[in-house]
Amino acid sequence: MLEITSLNNPKVKNWLKLKDKKYRDLTNLFLIENDHLINEAKKAQVLQETITTNQNIKADYLVTKEIMHQLSNQKSLPELIAVCQKIPPQPIGDKILVLDNIQDPGNLGTIIRSAVAFSCDTIILSTDSVDLYNEKVIRATEGMLFSINIIRTDLDEFFPTIQDKPILITDVTKGENIKKILPLTKYVLVIGNEGQGVKPQYQKYATHYLKINMHPACESLNAGVASSILLYELNEANHE
Amino acid sequence: MLEITSLNNPKVKNWLKLKDKKYRDLTNLFLIENDHLINEAKKAQVLQETITTNQNIKADYLVTKEIMHQLSNQKSLPELIAVCQKIPPQPIGDKILVLDNIQDPGNLGTIIRSAVAFSCDTIILSTDSVDLYNEKVIRATEGMLFSINIIRTDLDEFFPTIQDKPILITDVTKGENIKKILPLTKYVLVIGNEGQGVKPQYQKYATHYLKINMHPACESLNAGVASSILLYELNEANHE
Repeated sequence: MLEITSLNNPKVKNWLKLKDKKYRDLTNLFLIENDHLINEAKKAQVLQETITTNQNIKADYLVTKEIMHQLSNQKSLPELIAVCQKIPPQPIGDKILVLDNIQDPGNLGTIIRSAVAFSCDTIILSTDSVDLYNEKVIRATEGMLFSINIIRTDLDEFFPTIQDKPILITDVTKGENIKKILPLTKYVLVIGNEGQGVKPQYQKYATHYLKINMHPACESLNAGVASSILLYELNEANHE
Repeated sequence: MLEITSLNNPKVKNWLKLKDKKYRDLTNLFLIENDHLINEAKKAQVLQETITTNQNIKADYLVTKEIMHQLSNQKSLPELIAVCQKIPPQPIGDKILVLDNIQDPGNLGTIIRSAVAFSCDTIILSTDSVDLYNEKVIRATEGMLFSINIIRTDLDEFFPTIQDKPILITDVTKGENIKKILPLTKYVLVIGNEGQGVKPQYQKYATHYLKINMHPACESLNAGVASSILLYELNEANHE
């Protein structure tokens, strides 16, 4: 285990730069800081370096609490954090969730967690969405970002490539209940931005418009909740 | 419109104290800062005072941007904020959601929004849950906290009072699919803490244990998502 005590150590400086999206994009690396997450990263074989403040923990680097304090985003200082490689995108599957300009990190993390729970196999994340490797996104996924194929791409280019799958878009005025079109073995479910919904230029690709029954006092659901309910229904239909 | 320019004005000092739970509990007042929320508060007749930085907006007090900056929790300064009275609890209804030690403000807000959407009429919030009038909770409700009866109480005292309603508790090992017990016109759905679930001493009150079908790669759902899916199913069964 290599010991580092100075905040000016070049290794520490590079780790700190990973808090910045630009540097994560440049290096294809990101930081994680939770035992459960680190285990999931190890299983996914993307763990690159581990860093600890406790000499009894097996890790690549032993650092001071001062350094850990700079690296960590948590109130209570973790004993172990890790540098991971970004997960390379895989070919697109049959059960696809498209996220158009999702901005809230907690929402994106929650949606990824639900997508894994409900057997979705591919997430297409628009280039204007929040960064997948944002610390709050990673935390909200509860490690599930290592269990699903996530592709960040321009939706203008993605939509014209879909040939053989129903495209489902929510619409509170003309939508129908998803149960009417279930079961589906292939689908492209499109979820829009928290405030604006799916962009008008993508609406035309819909083969089905969906609506979730709600009490009139409530105008809309949280984007994470709406996508989770639709993914839940798609998954339930294959259990019946 | 009364004009206030000093941060030392007693009125301003009292408004600032409302950022503290203790003072909110003492005065039964809280701050809100979003036009949609302020409209919902007005409809619910709990709006007490309005405060603006813009002399063209009709409000009770005109303040400086410096004062607004202290009062607001947002990055982009709002032009209007308001002091509201806490909503007095109403008698308990038939469609009850019990929240046992929910800690994340975003989760609590999302759950309140979904509860209104899916026609739940009463939320029983345990005394150890996050404060309902926390600024992040209020924001995540999207104004829906004014549309449902929310009672903060000790669950040790609440559970023994339930006589005539099925009590539903999630349990990933012995749970059954909620569809098997639907439709229900009365229910008590119990949702537990994000990490620990429902406390062992309340488990014994369950008349039914529930489980949501999930892929084995995923251990659990976000608490807001799990409660929203179960409330959705309870509501859907009354639409069919």
